[in-house]
Amino acid sequence: MACETLLLFGATGDLARRMLLPSLYALHADGLIKDCLQIVGTARSELDDAGWQDFAKKALEEFLPADRKNGDLLATFLERLKYQPLDASKPDGFPALAEKIGDTSGGIAIFLSTAPSLFEPTIAGLQKAGLAGDNVRIGLEKPLGTDLDSSREINDAVAAAFPEERTFRIDHYLGKETVQNLLALRFANMMFEPLWNANGIDHVQITVSETVGLEGRVGFYDGAGALRDMVQNHMLQLLSLVAMEPPADLNATAVRDEKVKVLRSLRKIDSDSAATHTVIGQYGAGASKGEAVPGYVDELGKPSDTETFVAIKAHVDNWRWQGVPFYLRTGKRLPNRQSEIFIQFKKVPHSIFAKRGGRLTANKLVIRLQPEEYIRLLVMAKEPGLDREGITLREVPLDLSLTSAFAGTRRRIAYERLLLDLIEGDPTLFVRRDEVEAQWEWVDAIRAGWAANGMTPKQYGAGSWGPSAAIALTERDGVSWHD
Amino acid sequence: MACETLLLFGATGDLARRMLLPSLYALHADGLIKDCLQIVGTARSELDDAGWQDFAKKALEEFLPADRKNGDLLATFLERLKYQPLDASKPDGFPALAEKIGDTSGGIAIFLSTAPSLFEPTIAGLQKAGLAGDNVRIGLEKPLGTDLDSSREINDAVAAAFPEERTFRIDHYLGKETVQNLLALRFANMMFEPLWNANGIDHVQITVSETVGLEGRVGFYDGAGALRDMVQNHMLQLLSLVAMEPPADLNATAVRDEKVKVLRSLRKIDSDSAATHTVIGQYGAGASKGEAVPGYVDELGKPSDTETFVAIKAHVDNWRWQGVPFYLRTGKRLPNRQSEIFIQFKKVPHSIFAKRGGRLTANKLVIRLQPEEYIRLLVMAKEPGLDREGITLREVPLDLSLTSAFAGTRRRIAYERLLLDLIEGDPTLFVRRDEVEAQWEWVDAIRAGWAANGMTPKQYGAGSWGPSAAIALTERDGVSWHD
Repeated sequence: MACETLLLFGATGDLARRMLLPSLYALHADGLIKDCLQIVGTARSELDDAGWQDFAKKALEEFLPADRKNGDLLATFLERLKYQPLDASKPDGFPALAEKIGDTSGGIAIFLSTAPSLFEPTIAGLQKAGLAGDNVRIGLEKPLGTDLDSSREINDAVAAAFPEERTFRIDHYLGKETVQNLLALRFANMMFEPLWNANGIDHVQITVSETVGLEGRVGFYDGAGALRDMVQNHMLQLLSLVAMEPPADLNATAVRDEKVKVLRSLRKIDSDSAATHTVIGQYGAGASKGEAVPGYVDELGKPSDTETFVAIKAHVDNWRWQGVPFYLRTGKRLPNRQSEIFIQFKKVPHSIFAKRGGRLTANKLVIRLQPEEYIRLLVMAKEPGLDREGITLREVPLDLSLTSAFAGTRRRIAYERLLLDLIEGDPTLFVRRDEVEAQWEWVDAIRAGWAANGMTPKQYGAGSWGPSAAIALTERDGVSWHD
Repeated sequence: MACETLLLFGATGDLARRMLLPSLYALHADGLIKDCLQIVGTARSELDDAGWQDFAKKALEEFLPADRKNGDLLATFLERLKYQPLDASKPDGFPALAEKIGDTSGGIAIFLSTAPSLFEPTIAGLQKAGLAGDNVRIGLEKPLGTDLDSSREINDAVAAAFPEERTFRIDHYLGKETVQNLLALRFANMMFEPLWNANGIDHVQITVSETVGLEGRVGFYDGAGALRDMVQNHMLQLLSLVAMEPPADLNATAVRDEKVKVLRSLRKIDSDSAATHTVIGQYGAGASKGEAVPGYVDELGKPSDTETFVAIKAHVDNWRWQGVPFYLRTGKRLPNRQSEIFIQFKKVPHSIFAKRGGRLTANKLVIRLQPEEYIRLLVMAKEPGLDREGITLREVPLDLSLTSAFAGTRRRIAYERLLLDLIEGDPTLFVRRDEVEAQWEWVDAIRAGWAANGMTPKQYGAGSWGPSAAIALTERDGVSWHD
């Protein structure tokens, strides 16, 4: 039997350069993929094998950490790479792609990252050229549509050739170690579960903040905005992992069944509540990392009502989470680049320290995904001393630093995990169609609510934490954002 | 009004030299006691003020850490010290002691550490000499009797002159920072209380192990044994702090009310259960810290049935703790010097990681009192990696190191806190009479059970963890001692 093929669409794109090729090299260097696995790249560019190998070599030189570069390994890695130019909008290029791949009996793992308009012709081309058989899996990179309807169209097109169990929707947040450790934290420890509900948790915050502005994403971003670019996928996935019931097993069906239940339990935000439960913003001129930067419309070069910031007060309407707000916040040109889940536990019901001047703050759990990865529990301890002026209680961190607890383990790119799972066919960390659709359904209602209320983004200065209304959103509930 | 006097019985003893004088110096150096407070020492030795000052100076030179020695502070400290020789068995020396103290209108705090036979005459002498007025508090150091009856006799003798609210029974374990932090951990955090019961905790271990043998305590120890020397006081106090219900306040009454409820709820171990729920041992010859050491009877110089080791499986019969064993263990000539409370939480009810090879161990909390002081939570985390050979979960420590979290704070001697509380009259960290009596009641029943069953200590090699029966005591329940 022939060996497997990894077929990479968008082979000369930015994602390939920064993430996919370095990830594949890492899997190669660690001996995690079979020696015979071939990696076939395809894109519009007219390259030959050597041309793409050269592209890959430069990408690896730029993006691999110095201590991971190894001439021998690099040479053997490049030997895996083949290239076939393809205009995916036209069916006639696909037979040549199939020919390039050669014997497909070992199976194909396709990684498809493409413009929405190319999905249908690409799937049709693959199918016609015999590249959609029972032993072919397809990995789909976002964006998968811009709303529920367009997402259904894409999913239907994919489903015409690939059944759900061979369709691997990528959300690279799920490849992050800390996200997987959230599952370990919750379900491998007895510590947290008794607290992990409306009795123990006051509220949850999920923040994904970027310092960058529009960057090179002019074409895409203005048609998307923060809600669809970040909340619809990554942040709702994080929310579902925090909120889900314990699955019976770690397999793909059990985990995704629980996640989708959460997504379907999200309280609808519509025209009645959009104005009170969401805040949208767009950055104006300001400062980022000490440098003056232009506002969004200046970067874009035209007027726009696209939100570059969104804050949402969400609720999960089920027994476990009744009355617990989930505050979501994401934006561009914010003061820090930081992705984290912040869990604020309830206060103790009664302080026995109050009469001696001991001041308590409630316990917190911080799950930091970016730029560092750690899990930190904040607990109260008594400051050592004789307590003559009363008892001093202080919040002290209990750190589970994944880097220090597991010293010597290299921090992997999220795509390493996801590409390997795609190659080996484990769908647990990929997003099922019903999840995506539940996500879109919730997000579409919010957008309809904005439209119905004529809501447009409020300006915020680049380098600030968004419009002041975003502060008010939580402060009205007596809650402060964890910055 | 005159200033207060601290009156120290046993002023030339080992405790004074090692602990009390260094503690008083620390309080002096930190400006925590009034400038005018005089410290009057008394003992049988025929010294004058200068003689005791000289004694104190040598003690401080020997036992103060180098960075705490300060010539000026030492000189002003020594100026506080006065000395009066006294044979406490005879009433006629007390008037001279009273004269030495002088004006008592500022109040007296007495620290009494004496042989049991001297309690009655000392109290009588103090009373007759006018040293037991309303503004006099008495601190009592152990041993306070050898069983319930003799403890009652002593307490009655004390009570004849000092009401309970002015009687301060010392258990120096209560002066330790980590012990007080156990209260903060339990009652200043929401984290632990939902787990802190029979649903969340599998069992508790309390270990106080010493590496030393009999040392200079020949006269005392053989008449006491491990049960009365360690369990009756320190270990039962630790147990009561772990097991007590949340008090309504941190004041002495509220805290001690809760502790005594635990002590009274201890399930009686008597002739029926002594053989199955306790193990006693006596060390034979062996090795300690790499050196050959003699057995207990050789050190003692005569045959003895005194236990130098005891292990007990205890239960607290109330709602919170039903079915949760508290394993206590203490002994001399054990491999390490270590005092700790070890809390083993229950396992998760179902492992979602099992089918992927993830092995779970239950969460643990270690409260270490000696030789270091820290609180450590052991949780499971996923080892970073691609999990190709299954998921690897590992136990990682979350450390609340009191020394590192509160860097720059000097670690105080437990007696600093207790002496200052005695001088200032705060009884919270002292043991109330009803507690002591509940402790003795429980301990006496065990001793009666040993006698009824003709139990004598089993030999264990010096440097081992006690007789093998102590291992069996927990292993029968599927529990291993945390060494």
